[in-house]
Amino acid sequence: MAVYTHLGAEQLAALIAEFDVGALRSAKGIAEGVQNSNWLIETAGRDGSGARFILTMYEERTEVRELPFFLGLMDHLSARGCPVPATIHDRAGASFRQLDGKAVALIEFLSGVSVSEPTVGQARAVGEALARLHLASLDFPMVRTNDLGPAGWRRLVDGCGADGLDRIDPALGALVTRELDDLEAHWPADLPRSVIHADLFPDNVLMLGDRVCGLIDFYFACIDLTAYDLAVTHAAWCFDATGRHFAPELSAALIGGYETVRPLSAAERAALPLLARGAAMRFLSSRAYDWLHTPADAFVTRKDPLAFARRLTFYRDQPGVFA
Amino acid sequence: MAVYTHLGAEQLAALIAEFDVGALRSAKGIAEGVQNSNWLIETAGRDGSGARFILTMYEERTEVRELPFFLGLMDHLSARGCPVPATIHDRAGASFRQLDGKAVALIEFLSGVSVSEPTVGQARAVGEALARLHLASLDFPMVRTNDLGPAGWRRLVDGCGADGLDRIDPALGALVTRELDDLEAHWPADLPRSVIHADLFPDNVLMLGDRVCGLIDFYFACIDLTAYDLAVTHAAWCFDATGRHFAPELSAALIGGYETVRPLSAAERAALPLLARGAAMRFLSSRAYDWLHTPADAFVTRKDPLAFARRLTFYRDQPGVFA
Repeated sequence: MAVYTHLGAEQLAALIAEFDVGALRSAKGIAEGVQNSNWLIETAGRDGSGARFILTMYEERTEVRELPFFLGLMDHLSARGCPVPATIHDRAGASFRQLDGKAVALIEFLSGVSVSEPTVGQARAVGEALARLHLASLDFPMVRTNDLGPAGWRRLVDGCGADGLDRIDPALGALVTRELDDLEAHWPADLPRSVIHADLFPDNVLMLGDRVCGLIDFYFACIDLTAYDLAVTHAAWCFDATGRHFAPELSAALIGGYETVRPLSAAERAALPLLARGAAMRFLSSRAYDWLHTPADAFVTRKDPLAFARRLTFYRDQPGVFA
Repeated sequence: MAVYTHLGAEQLAALIAEFDVGALRSAKGIAEGVQNSNWLIETAGRDGSGARFILTMYEERTEVRELPFFLGLMDHLSARGCPVPATIHDRAGASFRQLDGKAVALIEFLSGVSVSEPTVGQARAVGEALARLHLASLDFPMVRTNDLGPAGWRRLVDGCGADGLDRIDPALGALVTRELDDLEAHWPADLPRSVIHADLFPDNVLMLGDRVCGLIDFYFACIDLTAYDLAVTHAAWCFDATGRHFAPELSAALIGGYETVRPLSAAERAALPLLARGAAMRFLSSRAYDWLHTPADAFVTRKDPLAFARRLTFYRDQPGVFA
């Protein structure tokens, strides 16, 4: 969460004038997203009755050459009725522009709040929305490989250094080595693939009651195993933040909701325990890397890697939760 | 700018339900205000057509016992037609509530953006708005003394330590000692008093074109010399951020705009050079204190005290700008 860049009102007004959305009325930097700067923008709207948008400025961790995939995907999903914000194209038809040497995009504002204690009804709705996203993206023509698959986890773990993981926790190095070897040896190659969101934590879902109003933050989206996305979402929704407490009723609701829209194949279901261990490894490896490379007193909050080491251990010891 | 506290969606929804504003639709933490946490809130509104608010959670630097003054003043000024956000009272009639052990207030949302390069028309409009604020507050019954007057500056300077100021700049200690002695010796006692905003920087003014849509952040407001508030606003609006470049046309417009609503007395005008030196000393002393007591790598951005040392020197050397 941050606003990394200061934009003056005059700059913002000139930028907004490049879009057919009416004049700028208000702009507030919002504490959302970990990689980019965001503003909640209000304009007069085309008819003067007011309209709201999110303005995102892409900071260095987002590759500009990948924006056409991310933004094109959002437009694609939005056009197919998914609760995904569409990008507002400028008067020249572009989905992003340059400002101060950085890419910026104006994105539809969607209502809803991110829940912190999901209910069964909410978990079920998220499962359904994820499945609809998977089906709606089947005819999306662009491709982006997942740089945070097994090879990416290995790269991050190697980047932690010889004793890095054990400095976080004495047992972490052994756990990660054993699990990573096993995941690499058995990672499935022949399951169905599609666009995946790859980061569908509660922070990235806007809800009102049991209704999903918005799926946001597609900046990890890529083409990968469809069922792996359900495994990521499972790891993100079915535990408390510490990873100590598993919620079987949320698990059943999430998977049940998913299958009302897109039933899993037998092979997908059989792979879920392994995919879930992979999902836990994905966040464990990136959090461990960031933990070791971020000063403890830095501007950003470090996320605890052990919360995902606990999920990894859980999925290894309890494969029956997916039976 | 910060959001110091995390509030879950469930907590926020329960809080909003204590007000007659419709159900929560959206909540975004916004990067605004240096002392408190703020969220831009959208609700269904009383009639379902939508309404927006700022939710402020008062962190430790704001004294809860002073909230009735700040919030009461905002309501008073709003009721008298000033572009000041009113507080939304809860169903029990209270202007603030407790949440997680902290005070929170729901405040009217006002459009407008904070300009970073004011025009003459904008400076004139701010002068007019400030004068209207002074007149509208004359019958406000509550009292709060200014703890950042001359005695407060002395306290902050003493808190910088024997060589603190000279560690910021070798000439700073001598400048501050001489000026502070002089200000204390000659600070006027018999000029008109009223409520003053005391911190009317461009950040705290929401504008659309030349129109002032909002005067915000009243958490330094107090009773003090009315013309001192004009001096503070002068120091805040008539220089570039570094304090190196004075803009005489903004100065003339600000004071001219002010006097179209509330003409200065001869004594007030004669005192302006001294009051402006005091205004510069107020921000110099607090910034120097914060500079020396904030680690360079801390979460908050330190503001350069020298930007106000330059204003102080300017006002001392160029009293004629107020002639």
